[in-house]
Amino acid sequence: MAPPSAIDVEAVTDTTGVTIPDPLSAPIKSNDIFGRRRKADKSQWVIAAPADTVNFRHRSYDHKPKAKRWDHIITHEAQTRKGNSLKKAAKYLGKPGLITLGGGIPSSEFFPFEELSIKVPRVGHFSEAETRESGVVITAGKHDLAEDKSIFDISTAFNYGQGAGSAQLLRYVTEHTELVHNPAYQDWRCTLSIGSTSALDMALRMLSRPGDMIISEEYTFSAAVETAIPLGVRMAGIPMDAQGLLPDAMDQILSTWDVQTKGARKPHLLYTVPTGQNPTGATQSHSRRRAIYAVCQKHDIYIIEDEPYYFLQMQPYTGPNAPDVPPPASHAEFLQSLVPSYLSMDVDGRVMRLDSFSKVLAPGSRIGWVTASQQLIEMYKKHADVSTQCPAGTSQLIVWKLLDEFWGHSGYLDWLIHIRLSYTQRRDAILAACERYLPREVVSWQPPMAGMFHWMKIDFRKHPQYPERSIEEIEESIFLSVIEHGALVMRGSWFYADAQDAHDTLFFRATYAAAPKEKIDEAIHRFSVAVREEFSVNGGAVRNGH
Amino acid sequence: MAPPSAIDVEAVTDTTGVTIPDPLSAPIKSNDIFGRRRKADKSQWVIAAPADTVNFRHRSYDHKPKAKRWDHIITHEAQTRKGNSLKKAAKYLGKPGLITLGGGIPSSEFFPFEELSIKVPRVGHFSEAETRESGVVITAGKHDLAEDKSIFDISTAFNYGQGAGSAQLLRYVTEHTELVHNPAYQDWRCTLSIGSTSALDMALRMLSRPGDMIISEEYTFSAAVETAIPLGVRMAGIPMDAQGLLPDAMDQILSTWDVQTKGARKPHLLYTVPTGQNPTGATQSHSRRRAIYAVCQKHDIYIIEDEPYYFLQMQPYTGPNAPDVPPPASHAEFLQSLVPSYLSMDVDGRVMRLDSFSKVLAPGSRIGWVTASQQLIEMYKKHADVSTQCPAGTSQLIVWKLLDEFWGHSGYLDWLIHIRLSYTQRRDAILAACERYLPREVVSWQPPMAGMFHWMKIDFRKHPQYPERSIEEIEESIFLSVIEHGALVMRGSWFYADAQDAHDTLFFRATYAAAPKEKIDEAIHRFSVAVREEFSVNGGAVRNGH
Repeated sequence: MAPPSAIDVEAVTDTTGVTIPDPLSAPIKSNDIFGRRRKADKSQWVIAAPADTVNFRHRSYDHKPKAKRWDHIITHEAQTRKGNSLKKAAKYLGKPGLITLGGGIPSSEFFPFEELSIKVPRVGHFSEAETRESGVVITAGKHDLAEDKSIFDISTAFNYGQGAGSAQLLRYVTEHTELVHNPAYQDWRCTLSIGSTSALDMALRMLSRPGDMIISEEYTFSAAVETAIPLGVRMAGIPMDAQGLLPDAMDQILSTWDVQTKGARKPHLLYTVPTGQNPTGATQSHSRRRAIYAVCQKHDIYIIEDEPYYFLQMQPYTGPNAPDVPPPASHAEFLQSLVPSYLSMDVDGRVMRLDSFSKVLAPGSRIGWVTASQQLIEMYKKHADVSTQCPAGTSQLIVWKLLDEFWGHSGYLDWLIHIRLSYTQRRDAILAACERYLPREVVSWQPPMAGMFHWMKIDFRKHPQYPERSIEEIEESIFLSVIEHGALVMRGSWFYADAQDAHDTLFFRATYAAAPKEKIDEAIHRFSVAVREEFSVNGGAVRNGH
Repeated sequence: MAPPSAIDVEAVTDTTGVTIPDPLSAPIKSNDIFGRRRKADKSQWVIAAPADTVNFRHRSYDHKPKAKRWDHIITHEAQTRKGNSLKKAAKYLGKPGLITLGGGIPSSEFFPFEELSIKVPRVGHFSEAETRESGVVITAGKHDLAEDKSIFDISTAFNYGQGAGSAQLLRYVTEHTELVHNPAYQDWRCTLSIGSTSALDMALRMLSRPGDMIISEEYTFSAAVETAIPLGVRMAGIPMDAQGLLPDAMDQILSTWDVQTKGARKPHLLYTVPTGQNPTGATQSHSRRRAIYAVCQKHDIYIIEDEPYYFLQMQPYTGPNAPDVPPPASHAEFLQSLVPSYLSMDVDGRVMRLDSFSKVLAPGSRIGWVTASQQLIEMYKKHADVSTQCPAGTSQLIVWKLLDEFWGHSGYLDWLIHIRLSYTQRRDAILAACERYLPREVVSWQPPMAGMFHWMKIDFRKHPQYPERSIEEIEESIFLSVIEHGALVMRGSWFYADAQDAHDTLFFRATYAAAPKEKIDEAIHRFSVAVREEFSVNGGAVRNGH
């Protein structure tokens, strides 16, 4: 991989109109962000110390607008949360010499863990084989903090924490968020989550009431629908194209919203997965996002931006026979290749962005983070204090040791480039198989630009049993036939935002994330045989040597 | 520590009246429970495999009654949860040779973790110093499962999981629960939680409606109150004595419940911390639990048994000058010394027991488990699937490697005995300090039998400014004076179950869990000076050499 070069972040203009150097505009070399870190108060590294994002930001945001207030959509439940009352006592802990018999936290003397080590890849040597060969073992001791060996250790991480998570990891994700998104308003904050599924559940409890409808893509993440339904909240699906949500359709639906026929007040929330959407794989372009954001401003819609696949944006697809596009030559080029987030254009503070380590490090970390205005992050933290608490300290320590202490921001960007190139290969493999085997007269698709999913449209009108059988019946018949031939793909109808709505499309979702390339090829071949049988279409390439 | 001897579990009588040998009645030696484990289907160890407690139980429960159904108290929200619809596809995964492009789970190829190691104590050498000297490093590899080196590894644990958690760790906690509690009905099940704070939040969403009141101790865990209030649920505090909840008072309150004056329907839930209750330190005796259970049966109350401190039951308190009671001579003696749980006497399946590793391993594990009837556990799992998911895989792997693969059940019981003896020393230290310094004419207390808390009653009537100043004002004055003298203890009023109720008691809570013995002594001394000043009481021992 090419050595990283300068990140070309634009200079910042302060409130007096004078251009000041941007603190993030220098090259990011491995760990050298440390040298420019804001001086940190040591007291924030200790057990269950409160942490505030604002201490971790590098740029000045004084010249940017303040976030709007969202009191008019915040639920009674969220407004009633006062936070942990015992934290009233915390303000006295700073008194010199004070001995506390206050908080009921166990002594680390009783944690049966003396050391924790992980073997991880060196920067630039990221593959499994390279890691086995040249990986480095990094170790956290029990009392590294007290012994001045590190700012995070077992005795701290394995004890109780605050709803926001540890200051150590919160600082890292705040800096990362600033580096990647450079939010457009003043009072943005981050807090750790235990993953975006939980974050969505908590967001809905903060921002929606039973009986509400929420705007979303017409095909959407089924777990999001299943999180919402028990809360009495339904999804109102908006038509999509290859770039996802259609802003005009959204504007039209909101402008003509009829409370009687819809059975719900006019929506005030948009749930969207803008990049590599699940299940469609659609990625909203920059201009599409601007148009959607404008519709949200027009109708005062608050946006939940669920972005697990943001760093699964891939190299441009060049087709089976054209040469690959060269990888990003620098961190700056890499960051500039990413489609801008809603967070980056959010002048109103109307976006709650959900990030996650699940797709870029490991789902079992159960660590994500939420970025939104101070008002909403404060509510989220209070909620976490009395429900999920913070991510497991075991996980926080492991992720922090790797990302902050070992790789640094620079090494992590290199890792993300590695992921990008690897997913590009996988995506190219599934597209090559589709081009080789699938009958074009029945199946059509767009090359996904991001994410884990390939979304294949079936022309159900060509099915011999259409229209005697319904779309769902034809879908089921194909689905079972594919299984009969030894492959499993997901039925599009499982992703309906609103199962009550009439649908006149038929899709299947296939992931290229899990199986190795050989298996992907074989599975798509089996899928093609099943589809050809179902539609009585002959032909298709034979698998070589299988 | 004495070598463990046989666990003397009573023989089991089957439905025909014939006595059959109890599979858990043999001695538990290190790991030898493995030899008697039920044969496990290998397919349950793989990524996101579903697990069912029923496969992990040793005893037969056929002769025991079935749990009652709780449909009449289950919320609409909980009844509406259908579980993850994509799991519909899981049933096809068993088909031989099937290639799945179904689930959107990342390949472990992209987890930058090759090995995870922890240095942990050998059984019987549990102190921090011993662990540093003689601790053992145990290691999980990335592909140990595929390579037949272990049944759990990084590639499995660090991927997505089911709401119930991994089968590996679920088996361990199920066996542990059976060993310790031997539940009294047929269809009990366990599921992992991400900690009991979250479990309570989820239980309340399953079992209570806005406007409800819940029975609890009159002084209770403040975070429980703070979890309930935003859900529109208030606590109805029941008077307590040194053994906690008073069954007659509870019966009286329920028997005379007036919907109009209370502003809530008659309660159907009891939230209780039966052992080492927070904040009072009270432990309900066996007979007290039987009496409370009978009241719950009479009024059809469902019980949430929150038991983080169950294994912080200590040796009997013998006073400052008497010799210590000898430690348990065997695992059997240890288990028999524990006060029986509600779960162990629950013939109706009306108990949801919340267990946690927070106080006996580390809070940062963020792992607990829930035991209840199948009906409630199924609901809990479905809820977890669309909110908290499962505990972090990092944590599950670490805890499983230690408890199951290294210590085994036997070694873990030894660890719990170690914790018991260590907390006994700490408890004795705070009581010795109290006896040495505190003015008996103003402060009174009961030696705690379990938990982390010492609860000191102040005779506010003796305060020079009583009755001109209210109880809360006197409490605040003492609190601030104690801080002035350099110690921090918690105000009893912060633990009111219902802050609206009138209270005529004044308490302070001090924990002996966190500070070292020397500091505890000094803090209680400072507390005593403050109290003596506030009450104009002279005397009290002088600290030696400080």
